[in-house]
Amino acid sequence: MTASDLFGPLFATNEMRSLFSERATLARMLKVEAALAEVEAAVGVIPRGAAGPIAAACNPDRYDIAELGLAAPASGNVAIPLVKALTAEVARRDKEAARFVHWGATSQDIIDSATSLAIRDGAALIGRDLDRAIKAFAALARRYRKKPMAGRTWLQQALPITFGLKAARYAAMLARVRAQLHEAANNASVLQFGGAAGTLASLGSKGSTVSKKLAASLDLDLPDLPWHGERDRVAVVATTLGIVIGASGKIARDVSLMMQTEVAEAFEPAAPGKGGTSTMPHKRNPVACAQILTAATLAPGLVASVLSGLVQEHERALGGWQAEWIALPQLFLLASGAVAQLAETAKGLEVDTERMRANLEFTNGLVMAEAVQMALGEKLGRMEAHDLLETASKKAVTEGRHLREVVGEIPHISETLGEKKLDALFDPLAYLGSAEEFIDRALKSAEQTLAKSAKPKGKKR
Amino acid sequence: MTASDLFGPLFATNEMRSLFSERATLARMLKVEAALAEVEAAVGVIPRGAAGPIAAACNPDRYDIAELGLAAPASGNVAIPLVKALTAEVARRDKEAARFVHWGATSQDIIDSATSLAIRDGAALIGRDLDRAIKAFAALARRYRKKPMAGRTWLQQALPITFGLKAARYAAMLARVRAQLHEAANNASVLQFGGAAGTLASLGSKGSTVSKKLAASLDLDLPDLPWHGERDRVAVVATTLGIVIGASGKIARDVSLMMQTEVAEAFEPAAPGKGGTSTMPHKRNPVACAQILTAATLAPGLVASVLSGLVQEHERALGGWQAEWIALPQLFLLASGAVAQLAETAKGLEVDTERMRANLEFTNGLVMAEAVQMALGEKLGRMEAHDLLETASKKAVTEGRHLREVVGEIPHISETLGEKKLDALFDPLAYLGSAEEFIDRALKSAEQTLAKSAKPKGKKR
Amino acid sequence: MTASDLFGPLFATNEMRSLFSERATLARMLKVEAALAEVEAAVGVIPRGAAGPIAAACNPDRYDIAELGLAAPASGNVAIPLVKALTAEVARRDKEAARFVHWGATSQDIIDSATSLAIRDGAALIGRDLDRAIKAFAALARRYRKKPMAGRTWLQQALPITFGLKAARYAAMLARVRAQLHEAANNASVLQFGGAAGTLASLGSKGSTVSKKLAASLDLDLPDLPWHGERDRVAVVATTLGIVIGASGKIARDVSLMMQTEVAEAFEPAAPGKGGTSTMPHKRNPVACAQILTAATLAPGLVASVLSGLVQEHERALGGWQAEWIALPQLFLLASGAVAQLAETAKGLEVDTERMRANLEFTNGLVMAEAVQMALGEKLGRMEAHDLLETASKKAVTEGRHLREVVGEIPHISETLGEKKLDALFDPLAYLGSAEEFIDRALKSAEQTLAKSAKPKGKKR
Amino acid sequence: MTASDLFGPLFATNEMRSLFSERATLARMLKVEAALAEVEAAVGVIPRGAAGPIAAACNPDRYDIAELGLAAPASGNVAIPLVKALTAEVARRDKEAARFVHWGATSQDIIDSATSLAIRDGAALIGRDLDRAIKAFAALARRYRKKPMAGRTWLQQALPITFGLKAARYAAMLARVRAQLHEAANNASVLQFGGAAGTLASLGSKGSTVSKKLAASLDLDLPDLPWHGERDRVAVVATTLGIVIGASGKIARDVSLMMQTEVAEAFEPAAPGKGGTSTMPHKRNPVACAQILTAATLAPGLVASVLSGLVQEHERALGGWQAEWIALPQLFLLASGAVAQLAETAKGLEVDTERMRANLEFTNGLVMAEAVQMALGEKLGRMEAHDLLETASKKAVTEGRHLREVVGEIPHISETLGEKKLDALFDPLAYLGSAEEFIDRALKSAEQTLAKSAKPKGKKR
Repeated sequence: MTASDLFGPLFATNEMRSLFSERATLARMLKVEAALAEVEAAVGVIPRGAAGPIAAACNPDRYDIAELGLAAPASGNVAIPLVKALTAEVARRDKEAARFVHWGATSQDIIDSATSLAIRDGAALIGRDLDRAIKAFAALARRYRKKPMAGRTWLQQALPITFGLKAARYAAMLARVRAQLHEAANNASVLQFGGAAGTLASLGSKGSTVSKKLAASLDLDLPDLPWHGERDRVAVVATTLGIVIGASGKIARDVSLMMQTEVAEAFEPAAPGKGGTSTMPHKRNPVACAQILTAATLAPGLVASVLSGLVQEHERALGGWQAEWIALPQLFLLASGAVAQLAETAKGLEVDTERMRANLEFTNGLVMAEAVQMALGEKLGRMEAHDLLETASKKAVTEGRHLREVVGEIPHISETLGEKKLDALFDPLAYLGSAEEFIDRALKSAEQTLAKSAKPKGKKR
Repeated sequence: MTASDLFGPLFATNEMRSLFSERATLARMLKVEAALAEVEAAVGVIPRGAAGPIAAACNPDRYDIAELGLAAPASGNVAIPLVKALTAEVARRDKEAARFVHWGATSQDIIDSATSLAIRDGAALIGRDLDRAIKAFAALARRYRKKPMAGRTWLQQALPITFGLKAARYAAMLARVRAQLHEAANNASVLQFGGAAGTLASLGSKGSTVSKKLAASLDLDLPDLPWHGERDRVAVVATTLGIVIGASGKIARDVSLMMQTEVAEAFEPAAPGKGGTSTMPHKRNPVACAQILTAATLAPGLVASVLSGLVQEHERALGGWQAEWIALPQLFLLASGAVAQLAETAKGLEVDTERMRANLEFTNGLVMAEAVQMALGEKLGRMEAHDLLETASKKAVTEGRHLREVVGEIPHISETLGEKKLDALFDPLAYLGSAEEFIDRALKSAEQTLAKSAKPKGKKR
Repeated sequence: MTASDLFGPLFATNEMRSLFSERATLARMLKVEAALAEVEAAVGVIPRGAAGPIAAACNPDRYDIAELGLAAPASGNVAIPLVKALTAEVARRDKEAARFVHWGATSQDIIDSATSLAIRDGAALIGRDLDRAIKAFAALARRYRKKPMAGRTWLQQALPITFGLKAARYAAMLARVRAQLHEAANNASVLQFGGAAGTLASLGSKGSTVSKKLAASLDLDLPDLPWHGERDRVAVVATTLGIVIGASGKIARDVSLMMQTEVAEAFEPAAPGKGGTSTMPHKRNPVACAQILTAATLAPGLVASVLSGLVQEHERALGGWQAEWIALPQLFLLASGAVAQLAETAKGLEVDTERMRANLEFTNGLVMAEAVQMALGEKLGRMEAHDLLETASKKAVTEGRHLREVVGEIPHISETLGEKKLDALFDPLAYLGSAEEFIDRALKSAEQTLAKSAKPKGKKR
Repeated sequence: MTASDLFGPLFATNEMRSLFSERATLARMLKVEAALAEVEAAVGVIPRGAAGPIAAACNPDRYDIAELGLAAPASGNVAIPLVKALTAEVARRDKEAARFVHWGATSQDIIDSATSLAIRDGAALIGRDLDRAIKAFAALARRYRKKPMAGRTWLQQALPITFGLKAARYAAMLARVRAQLHEAANNASVLQFGGAAGTLASLGSKGSTVSKKLAASLDLDLPDLPWHGERDRVAVVATTLGIVIGASGKIARDVSLMMQTEVAEAFEPAAPGKGGTSTMPHKRNPVACAQILTAATLAPGLVASVLSGLVQEHERALGGWQAEWIALPQLFLLASGAVAQLAETAKGLEVDTERMRANLEFTNGLVMAEAVQMALGEKLGRMEAHDLLETASKKAVTEGRHLREVVGEIPHISETLGEKKLDALFDPLAYLGSAEEFIDRALKSAEQTLAKSAKPKGKKR
């Protein structure tokens, strides 16, 4: 569904939909077949002349996707009919060469190596959008570092924070998951090449040489040994995508809550026709958040499927492996959409700092009670301060009045602190503890992460 | 993925892929729009003349799926751009009529009612294939009711059963889940019609009349009230599909185990090119089982996503509802493939009763030790019988000999029971307890279920 | 964890914790053993005199739970060491009787039948609390049927609804899931009795009679045949509990959103020390909602585990069955806590109807724009009405003024409708469509459900 | 359940059950409270004399677990009643000191830091058992490097492998997940300290100093900023445990398949009373495998719950965070049991190499057809070789004869290769490709992993 033309754009980027299109999936498998033929010809496992015709036939446009799909059920996967079709295509040019198609490989070698290529490239796309989101939230953190808003716990206003601190927390979280994704994708960008039972038996003594060159040719790492039945690396990619999506969902949840009619502190960037309804002109639906939250609702289940699939039978299995074909692309697609929407949301977020400050007044000053109590405690001792504030707060609640007003009327408080000091204590900016230091540390870490992903590398990733 | 041309045929029936194709999805939404216009015109909510042009424009072939898909992200769903496109299409013929498109409805009304139609029709397809599978397993139960095989617990041979009993258990289970599916789909085949906030406010006093007629026109039930945010009925469909798939997976697991090279008792039906590999002519891969087991690996996660989505915000939500669009079709698709493969497997199952009987010899008669002990107990008392058999069994294991031989050499046993009786006790068919009665009861229940689904009904389901 | 003394009370009722306590679990297994002995003695399968000593030893207090637990790993389940301990206990009184303990049964028979008892009783407990919640929400629906509040979609104010309608939706949903639970539990309250391989071989021709009487003695239904490997009934119970919890979560999400400092429309019932924090006197944490939402976060995964477990091997399996022991009790425990908290929340919910009405003013009258447009449309034609309202709404937004004021200044509007009519149109109660009818229908259905569960039955459920 | 006395031992180690016992959980929270008081006293945030009495009261044995549990629901967590009880306990000795209990902290600070300690120590326990399993499988890889067995794909015999290769694949996989776990636990062993809204406001300018010293005192890392609502690190631990369990499940699945009566190639180590049944003396149930597979059935759902919980509201949330309290300990408990059982299974695995070789004969030599074809191809050209072998294989299948016999009768084959060469070609050891090289590489990697975890560190982990 997530790859479809109708529902796809709602949940995935166009780039990622291209990467996991049927044509591109085919292209990756054919890329592996072509590289295999070229390497084997170079090494002398197959005749030197066979590589050319095989590579030439590895053009995905030559194959009928629907036909391959319909042939798949009899074989159990799409690589087997593809190899058959490829062999026929080569044979049309060079009968001899056709006999060396797919030499020494099993269908899972082709599918898995193609998946490794998809992981490598898909993670790079998501990484790039994560970098954009990190940058944007870092910018918000810097810009709003001194703009107070209500810190909310249990969906209740608790104490003041700044919007900059909130954004810094997001940036730091995204930087952490970005590093995780980089690592997971790197570890999983490995060749699969083992032949029918994972021994490369049909290549005799040349298995090792062919493997090494094949990995290099595909820009994949060479694993210690084939991993047809040991899918931990793929599972780590899946779980990491699940965490990327969940982290995006956390932020989307917050933004959608801040966009509530009654809160109205921050808004997804406006765009013509976006999130509006003609009959309800006041509404501005958090459509980007909804798309991210949808991904966050779907991802845990998809991750669970991949984890269930780990329990595989012997050398090559039935059920667990095949489930990856469905679940892994969906995780990439959903992650692509979630992160891209998140980056756009962060970049264009409309922040209403006045409303943030105004909302801090919702409790009639009670969010500042702790600040007054602390200041008073330094003079009167903590116990007395606590008792005084408790009484004042209860009074403010009962009478529906502002706490500042109430404490102003309690001589023991107003005289001890003085009116000016009391006014100052009701300034949320004066009660932010280590917020700025936290922001600075988070920004520094985020920058280090961004610097790492900006570094040029020999490899594509 | 499961709906795609490349991977779809592996995991879903063509019929179900058609039912959930992008075009058919569009068609269902347009069907709801057309019915709405017709009902509202009949009732006088919109001008009588508006219905014709609207209904005429509700032809799915007039719309560009990719374009609608690309317009969806700004609105958050595909119904909003569809309504826009439909309005434009109507306007091309009749500007006045165009103003009455989608009158009084919210986009979720259209999407949900279309989903109800899909549930109704999708469940009917799966029900039909479940009936086929039940019939086929019932036939196997009848045919093999007296064919002994090893009952296996913990993947170890335990006591003899018959293959008929095994098949009867499958038939009974499938009959139970078939009844569940029927009920779940029936309950969920309900209209959604509530307008922007679920009150049908813009229809004034006519909401009730329109709702009733709309439900009738779509052959859906009329619910007590709109259910935009209360998705329990949809969730029951999802969980039931999860159980249908899991039940199919149980049987597929068994068949794949029986097909093992070393067991070789039953086989998926052969077909040219099915499950074979040219280089390994002895292999007969359980490809249908693999496809079913893949569905069984994926389904629990998809069900979990739908359940997570139940927690929705207020009148219409963000995230939880939208996740259904992705998860529910996949469950239908996977269930369709799993059940169809299961029905085919059951119908054409190749059963090797000789091998079943031969495998019972793997333990050198130990699977019959309990039978001998019981018979001996009647003569000698249970305690003595137990001790004698324990000694004999140990001897058989240690010396690698057949238990029949060993007990024949123990005079106290052979004389008590006699050679003829002893021979008879080693006949697995003589130690099957209530197996036949169980088969009869299961067959009767299965037949009742089949009879129920064969009954003609006014409604489509 | 959910059963533990430290975390249990947070998430489960004391009753349900008792039902799934280690001692009660043991007691159910012993109850099955006792009933088995009594029935077999009555039927003559075991000596008449054996039943008494066996039944006498089936007292859970005689057994050391920790010792049984430590013995379990070698056998793979707790029934095997329990049978051993029970046999020893019987032998202390009557050596002969000890030989007939557990006669003809396999350990899974005991564990599963005990589980059926737990399902029956656990569902009754949850059903009772669901009834309480349904009643309480029905009362809220009646009481607040004419109290307007903002209908919210996408977390944005959309159109007015009443709190009564919201509560009616909850009552209707809970009534539906209550009926589902009743049905699921009834279907799963079945005996398990099949012996080692599900044939009751060791009972010879008496299997059927013993089964029938054993089911009756335990107040369980008699299934067609043993179901050691076919767990669909248990899975339906698990998924239904998942839906019960998810439905509770939906309501808890709503309540927690209404409790937000900035919304403040409804509150969990207050209790001394509940949800408060001494340093933040203004806070009233939605602690009951949090407990329900925690259950809703955990349940989908537990359901997925049970569904994954459906794929079992042959006659009795390894892994899938055993997972039920952990997942099923947790679902019961979490459901018990969620539903009980929900019932309490519903019963004591503090509703601030003034605040609800005041919040409707958050949009400066824009939530009523559609109502004005509809009225205007009847006089001026819909198109002109739409254009006039669109202009007015935009003006209201831009100038930060109330829509009533703005439309009053547009002569074409104010003259057409008149000031009095205009005032009336801004009354949310005048734009509620079919809300009352919906409430009535929902209440009627809820009452029918309650009536059904109140009916006295022969059986315990 | 997994922590209980009755079911706990089946699925978790005693050590891990101790680590997550209610008492130990309490002890960790009190450890954080004690350290907090000591650090704050040292820094001068609280009176120097307050630390002693507070630390003295932080003795878990002083508190009534059931009482704390029953008090938790009103507060929503167990830390709040614990702080209350701790304060009362301190007050009994020193009223003044009692006022400084929990100074500046929020209950989540205590619970999360305690969780970090549990993660650190729990991961160390699992890491140690993973090391044991890796060592044991590496030893099997070395010992059986030249012992042939059937490589099985799709549960069908494919080509020969060696048992050493299989074990090497396991060792390599476990080494990879072991490294992942080390990293995940290291990253998550961080302090949580932010106060009510994550700013440490009540500590004024001393928040940073206290944090740093508190982290050091608890042997935890200092994070950039509080992470009350950003749970990615915990999620990575959960997903990694899910992968550890899944990897264990893969091996358990294989072992249970090899233990099948009809395969009988490898067996869990025997122990008195383990996996046996008195009435079926031939059975040897794979009880350790069952326990591992149960964990593997449960883990994906628990991981999904933690991932769903990532979507948290604002500064501190309701539902998502709390779900960790239930899911995370269960993952640790299940992982502990699975890995410990796996290590024991690996250490004591009984391998029947004769049976492995005998089973290779199940196909009447067809598993070696590819080897003959390859050798023949070098002499006759590949095409002719392929055709000859295809004919021979079909003949062998049809006539139920051994392929060696059949090819011996085809002069073109027997003359080309000679009888001696033909005999050699039917030796599975001669057709193992790169198996030994793969083993060597895997062993080297495994050793590097083991060396890393053996390195002494300053920190506990």
